[in-house]
Amino acid sequence: MIIAKARAVDGPDKPFRQAEIKRRDLDSHDVLIEIKFAGICHSDIHTAHGDWGPVNYPLVPGHEIAGIVTDVGPSVTKYKVGDRVGVGCMVDSCGECENCRKGEEQYCLNGKIDTYAAVDKYGQYTQGGYSTHIVVPESFVLKIPDNIALDVAAPLLCAGITTFSPLNHWGAGPGKKVAVVGMGGLGHMAVKIAHAMGAEVTVLSQTLNKKEDGLQFGADHYYASSDPETFNTLTGYFDLIINTVSAKIDMDAYFSLLTLDGTLVNVGAPGEPLSLNVMSLIGHRRSFAGSMIGGIRETQEMLDFCARHNIVPKIEKVSADQIDEAYERVLASDVKYRFVIDISTM
Amino acid sequence: MIIAKARAVDGPDKPFRQAEIKRRDLDSHDVLIEIKFAGICHSDIHTAHGDWGPVNYPLVPGHEIAGIVTDVGPSVTKYKVGDRVGVGCMVDSCGECENCRKGEEQYCLNGKIDTYAAVDKYGQYTQGGYSTHIVVPESFVLKIPDNIALDVAAPLLCAGITTFSPLNHWGAGPGKKVAVVGMGGLGHMAVKIAHAMGAEVTVLSQTLNKKEDGLQFGADHYYASSDPETFNTLTGYFDLIINTVSAKIDMDAYFSLLTLDGTLVNVGAPGEPLSLNVMSLIGHRRSFAGSMIGGIRETQEMLDFCARHNIVPKIEKVSADQIDEAYERVLASDVKYRFVIDISTM
Repeated sequence: MIIAKARAVDGPDKPFRQAEIKRRDLDSHDVLIEIKFAGICHSDIHTAHGDWGPVNYPLVPGHEIAGIVTDVGPSVTKYKVGDRVGVGCMVDSCGECENCRKGEEQYCLNGKIDTYAAVDKYGQYTQGGYSTHIVVPESFVLKIPDNIALDVAAPLLCAGITTFSPLNHWGAGPGKKVAVVGMGGLGHMAVKIAHAMGAEVTVLSQTLNKKEDGLQFGADHYYASSDPETFNTLTGYFDLIINTVSAKIDMDAYFSLLTLDGTLVNVGAPGEPLSLNVMSLIGHRRSFAGSMIGGIRETQEMLDFCARHNIVPKIEKVSADQIDEAYERVLASDVKYRFVIDISTM
Repeated sequence: MIIAKARAVDGPDKPFRQAEIKRRDLDSHDVLIEIKFAGICHSDIHTAHGDWGPVNYPLVPGHEIAGIVTDVGPSVTKYKVGDRVGVGCMVDSCGECENCRKGEEQYCLNGKIDTYAAVDKYGQYTQGGYSTHIVVPESFVLKIPDNIALDVAAPLLCAGITTFSPLNHWGAGPGKKVAVVGMGGLGHMAVKIAHAMGAEVTVLSQTLNKKEDGLQFGADHYYASSDPETFNTLTGYFDLIINTVSAKIDMDAYFSLLTLDGTLVNVGAPGEPLSLNVMSLIGHRRSFAGSMIGGIRETQEMLDFCARHNIVPKIEKVSADQIDEAYERVLASDVKYRFVIDISTM
């Protein structure tokens, strides 16, 4: 049994507090990671607040994890002590279903094991990365390339792969016109990645407040979605729209921006149902799709891609004592563009 | 000026009456067609009733047209007098936009010209196939293969292409599991075509009333969508679902039947907005798409495909005097599976 220091929350409206959590002794294929940094994802907040259904408290969120291997199980071959590694949104899956065998473990038909707030195959309730240590099977551990610092590596494990995967799957690249809706943690990664893939990138953000940043991240164009003129100007323009916004938006207006055979992919999940007019899709054989993180192989591809293209998120580091404050600032959209907890302050 | 006999309707609640309509003298690329048969499509009813917005009355519907060429303009090269030909949902497009140049005239960026209830480039209000003659540019006229009788050819021009196009575009074929929602005019064509393409075909109809027909048309399986057990049995089963139903259905329930990367394509357009839970798409990277008829080249491909595979719709012939009655029966789902007007009774 390994005791890790953590920050836990005891209920939907409770502040974070110091806690100790137990990590299992290493199984043969397990890796023990000393966590150095953990990103704060909007999902952490939704889960901690119980927005997505009841959870077991105390809860330790965190699925953007970067650290150093400090021990390995006897059968581990991929990693050794001292390796720089990461863990994302899942720590296990069945490994046997059709989707797992395709390397799409995020869509495991028997249910992937989330990094926190899930029950793993040992019957343990999983606890996430706001902690000093975590034990994960080597097959769910990612190698962080040498030229990516651990603090900026952390958000790649969720915000990075969540945007890389649909851009990759729907073929963002030279000659393709890609729009990114929302300029938050996910949106700013989508801009950097789509630009590096060679696509023409347009940001659709509520206001022009972050325009300078957006252009610096690689956007070719930047429009305010609050300006109705934007939707006239860009009618039928995009091959692919990545919608990173979880709030309810006028879907038909965004569909109208797609060209023939264009696709709008939601990576954010609004809590309430969306409404749409089917004619918005039929009119130009458009598609509305959803995408969830990415598989382990693709997550490694994403990390290697980011290393090759020198892509890292823009982050603001916070101490363990500042998690509550960081949550409030995320909810107020007051973050450029991802909070990362320095676990040494735990 | 050519005078054609027709059946026209004078208002949303009015019966059809005998009428005479004017067809333009042949322009250089025009073909004059003596219409032999015209299918009754649900869209005719929606338009005649003003469900899709105001129309100019008197209105002559009909966009499933089969007949014989009786005259051609001086520059016509594709057709000659005596040819067996068809006309579908559109009679012109700009011919110059990106989509027209791709052969996807149905998505013309400057607006395709519908066979009826549209204004053509001569400034004339178009009138459809419930009439003895029509004049159409040769580029929007289809050749009906010799082994397809004209009466059963007519519905292929809308019901056939509307289902062939998405099946073709989304790759229905051997190894693919395709569901067809609804067993009406479109649905029964979708079953026949998907079966001929080599896909495994499942019908999802409200009841099992038409099961025997469905299996005879080529369905491998037939389920009642009114039975909740259907949705448990078929969870995650289909690569492609063609939804031919215009009524509002529980989209999330149908999305749950799609496998990883599966697509549900609506070819029917509900009048009111649909509601969906984005998580239904995100969970397995599913897509919700729309498709509208097909381009001219693809419509000819469809006719040739149907000829090769001996596919024709199952029809019930009616006289011109029976149009009102036929409309009532379509609205009551009392048709197996398409009414076709015998224009000789006009």
